Order: sequence, then C-alpha cells, then structure tokens
Amino acid sequence: MRGTVLYGTRDVRFEERDAPKVDAPTDAVIRMSASCVCGSDLWPYRGISPVTQPTPMGHEYCGIVEEVGRAVTSIKRGQFVIGSFFASDNTCPHCKAGYQTSCQHREVVGGAQAPFLRVPLADGTLVATPEVPSDDLIPSLLAVSDVFGTGWFAADAANVKPGKTVAVVGDGAVGLLGVLSAKQMGAERIIAMSRHASRQKLAREYGATDIVTERGDDGVARIKELTKGIGADAVLECVGTKESMMQAIGATRAGGSVAYVGVPHGVEIDAQKLFFTHVHLHGGPAPVRRFLPKLIELVWKGKVNPGKVFDLTLPLDQVAEGYRAMDERRAIKALLRP
Amino acid sequence: MRGTVLYGTRDVRFEERDAPKVDAPTDAVIRMSASCVCGSDLWPYRGISPVTQPTPMGHEYCGIVEEVGRAVTSIKRGQFVIGSFFASDNTCPHCKAGYQTSCQHREVVGGAQAPFLRVPLADGTLVATPEVPSDDLIPSLLAVSDVFGTGWFAADAANVKPGKTVAVVGDGAVGLLGVLSAKQMGAERIIAMSRHASRQKLAREYGATDIVTERGDDGVARIKELTKGIGADAVLECVGTKESMMQAIGATRAGGSVAYVGVPHGVEIDAQKLFFTHVHLHGGPAPVRRFLPKLIELVWKGKVNPGKVFDLTLPLDQVAEGYRAMDERRAIKALLRP
Repeated sequence: MRGTVLYGTRDVRFEERDAPKVDAPTDAVIRMSASCVCGSDLWPYRGISPVTQPTPMGHEYCGIVEEVGRAVTSIKRGQFVIGSFFASDNTCPHCKAGYQTSCQHREVVGGAQAPFLRVPLADGTLVATPEVPSDDLIPSLLAVSDVFGTGWFAADAANVKPGKTVAVVGDGAVGLLGVLSAKQMGAERIIAMSRHASRQKLAREYGATDIVTERGDDGVARIKELTKGIGADAVLECVGTKESMMQAIGATRAGGSVAYVGVPHGVEIDAQKLFFTHVHLHGGPAPVRRFLPKLIELVWKGKVNPGKVFDLTLPLDQVAEGYRAMDERRAIKALLRP
Repeated sequence: MRGTVLYGTRDVRFEERDAPKVDAPTDAVIRMSASCVCGSDLWPYRGISPVTQPTPMGHEYCGIVEEVGRAVTSIKRGQFVIGSFFASDNTCPHCKAGYQTSCQHREVVGGAQAPFLRVPLADGTLVATPEVPSDDLIPSLLAVSDVFGTGWFAADAANVKPGKTVAVVGDGAVGLLGVLSAKQMGAERIIAMSRHASRQKLAREYGATDIVTERGDDGVARIKELTKGIGADAVLECVGTKESMMQAIGATRAGGSVAYVGVPHGVEIDAQKLFFTHVHLHGGPAPVRRFLPKLIELVWKGKVNPGKVFDLTLPLDQVAEGYRAMDERRAIKALLRP
C-alpha cells in the first residue's frame, strides 16, 4: 500500500509502506473512506516541531471496518466507523470522567493519510454510524473525527451556554467549527476573529454575529468595545501561539472562561497576570471520544454541516499539494480521497 | 492616632498617622475591633515586593461603624461590620457576576492595622452582623474578612463537591481554612500538605483526613499514590510560588481543578505542559464579598471556628512582633487588638 510519510521540513512523500494489520487482539483495521490534513500537521511540516525520522502522517479518519482482533466485541467487519487521534479504552477513570485523551492506556493513532489504518483499542475508540452513510455525508463525518470534535470541546470547555457572548480566536477549521458549536449550544452573540473573506463568510454561515479583524491588543480592545467594556463570557483559543493565548485571556470578562485546544507552542503564561484577570482556563487535547455519539447524531440528522470546512478535495496520492495549499492558506482544510 | 507603617525590609513601625475620616460621600469610618497580619504582608516585609514609600499596612478588619458619608444608605453608625481588602460597588457587571475584586470601581483598602479605618464604597463593601457580637466571636469574624473568605473561594473555584477528593497545598491560614471550607462543602477526603506539627493538628481538626509531608515531585507522587494513580479531583494552591503551583497541577486528575489564591510571585506556566494535564485552572484575588453573608452566618451560628488560625494575640502597638513571629513561622497568624 502507498501512504503519506513526512521526511522533514516541507518534504511530504506518498510512498510504499507496509499495509497495517491486526497486531493486538484489541485492534481493528479500517479501509479509509476519507482522510485529511490537520492544522497540527503543519507544525512539523513547517519545521517548528522537529521531524527526527520519517513519520507516517494523518490522524483523522472514518471508514469501513476491514478486520478486527479476536478480543474486539462491539465493532464488526463492514461497519462504518469514526475514531479520534488517541485510542482509548473508554473504561479507565480518566475515560469515565470524559477525558479519553488522558486515558491510562491511550495510544497515538497515526498514518491515517493512507488507504488503510490500524486502530488500537477498537472497542473503546471507534463509534459506528447507524448504517453505511451516503457519500455526501462523508466530509461531515470525517470532520467529527477531529476538527468538529475539537471545536465542540472548545465550546464545552469554555462553558458556552444559551444567551452567552462568545469570541473565537483563530479562523482555521477548528475555530470555524467552534463557532458552529457555540451556535448549537445556544450562544447569543458569537464574535469570530478573522481577516480572510472566505473564512469570514463560512463563520457567518455557521452562526457568527460579528467579525473582528484586529489582532493582539487591538483585537482585545475591539472585543471590549463590542461588550460594553466587559469582555466575552467565553473565548475559544484555537491557534496555540503566545499571541492568540494572550488575546483570548485579554478578551474574557472576569469570571469568564478561556478554552485552548491548539497545542501551545512556546507559550509561557505569567501566572500573576492571569491571577488578576479572574479568568477560568481549561483545555488540552480534545477528548473527541466523549462527543462522538452526539456529533455523529447531529450530522446524521442533517442538523449541521461541519464538512464545509473542506474547501479542497484531492485524491490521496496528491496529499503533498494538500499540505502546500494549507501551508499557504489557499485552503482551510484539504480532504483526501483514497 | 498611631498606626502601622512599613518603611522597608523588616522595618515595621507603629507611629503617629492622620486619623482617617470620611472623604467621599460613599465612605465609612470604622473603629477597629481587631485586625491582623496577612501572609501577603510578608512579601513586602521580606523585601520580595519592593516598598517604594512608607506604606500604611493592614487590609483585614472588622469593627463598629463610627461615621458614614451622606450617600451611604445600608450601613449605619453603631453597626458591627466586616469588609474585604478591595472595596467594591457590588452593582457593576463584574460584581453581579460574583467577582467583586474585579469591580469596575474597586479601591484598595489599606491601613487596617490601626484603631480606625476608612472604607470606600461602604454600601457595596461592608456587611453588618445581626447585632454587635460577643468578644469570643471576634477572631472568627475577623477571619471571614480575608483568610476564611479566601480559603472558601479556593474550594469554590476548585469545584469542591460532596464526595470529592481534595488536596491543599500550603499550611498557612488560607490553606488551613481551605481545608475547613472543603469539609463544609462535603469533600470526602481532604489531603493537607504540611510539615509542621501544630498546623497538621489544626488541619485534622478542620477536617483533613490525610497529611502529606513530602513536597515537589515527591509530594505529587504521594498524592498519586493515595489516589490510586489518578490524582485529586480538586487542588487548592494557597502559597503562590512556582513550586507550589507545579505541585498543585501535578497532583490533579485529568479534568480536575486547581484553584490558586495566593498572589503568584515569579510563576511562569508552560502552557504546553498544562495542556496535556487537562486541568482546569482558576483563581485570583478572592471575591470575599460574594461569600460574606454565608460565612458570617456560619460563624454566627457556631458551625465553624475559623478564628483558631490566630495562634498569637498581641496588642496593636506590638504589631512588629506579629510580623516577626509570622516571618519566622513561630505563629500561623497574629491577631492585633487595638
């Protein structure tokens, strides 16, 4: 089989790899219906996170179960399933508390930008759809696997509630789906911070009521202005830089909440400054597994269309162009079809 | 009138000062029944926070209203009142959200280690007791003004709930009253981190079920051991140093909460490390005003005895000895009688 391997900065290759197989009795192998390139794949692609050895890429996936290990009981061959970037047993205390990405037995799922994928801990990790979906649902079901689940977690972690004012820092796929999630949770006012016309348009479509183009201190001042000097009740930080984190904290009211869901890179928080803001801070790798049943249902019933974040679709063997398009911000997110 | 003034490192003087008077129509002047030395007073006393000019000290107070400005309507001469270290209007959006220490019109209350004190925004800041209390209630009512209110906020901000496991970092007055607060909120297991026999004893009396003497990574390991490798549901960080903050974060389960209520000094938090812990972080200057009615009631009805943290009582003119005793950890907290 041929799959995607990152060799170093901007060096993505689609090349022959061993096909995955069931190694442990709790594994499943799935035949990919679609995969995609993640914003977080750009950190190593751009050389910001080091690439120490050739690395199979991709951690967003949905598809048909091809084979399961003998210990797998809830997932069957032929089902259409969705999982997340960490495999989890879904039974340990952290999983039971809803933090499956801190599962005591978690394993990284990697190499999903390929026709087949091995998923460990299949019973705890994968959720099957009611039946095999029609092709038009695939983009939205794929979005559930990571970006929609992460945007949803951001809104949940920021305590978004009916009637609240929400600001979203970051107009990538996660930020845009944070807007959609906040709308679903009943937010009254949703301020999207974006400078890109196409992303602003999708943000509005997903429920944004205001667009702020300013950044940094100016962005904070603008949010304060829009909220009578108070700040937003909830701010979703969907980038992971020092600037975006400070912008999010500064834009939040006393007693309000900042959720941060992009892996922070080079972000040190001055605890004394944070102290005097009275902000709640919560985040981490999104425990997408917690939300899979709910989000699959929303997509299945046609209530949401998170798949619109894929504004570029490529055959899998053109994956390198998907990375380039996202790196150059020509595309929000690239969907890959095997 | 003579009052307490800090001139520089370890240079506390009790000297002639102008007696406070009603300056603004919203002010009150109270005749102190008792004041005390705060753990946070030790930062400038030790020279860790700079003292740029002679500074009247003290921000914990309770006493009899001597005079009120013409705009004051809810507080009357002769009432026994308690307030907090920030004066607040208790009507602005931040106050209404329960964050009175972020009040849009907040003012620092200072100079309470003296026989008289001016309190700005008296209507929003002061709460009167049902009647003038008997002398034996004074220490506990004084504790409500800051250390009990702060310990209570720590437990509230850490989401302490019935049946939960709580750890408290710091065995000063705030930490000890964090133990008492967690007990009042129904925590099942309360782990106090302390190396001092007298403080351990009071922690046990206040409801601690376990004592951990280890610190830093060893302290974290011990808490993990006591919680089957999971960590505590809620951790109260009542110190304000980098070590205590890292200890608190490390001791918390994924999805659990750290509350931090001591002003952080030189604490930088690595956001990427925090990200992978999945911990909720919340804190700040305790909005004691939110809790005053509840805590006064608990004391008034004899349900709690937070005044036990005062293990040294001195006449006000011996205030310098109070600072020395706390600096040398001979006393948990020094009460001052005018």
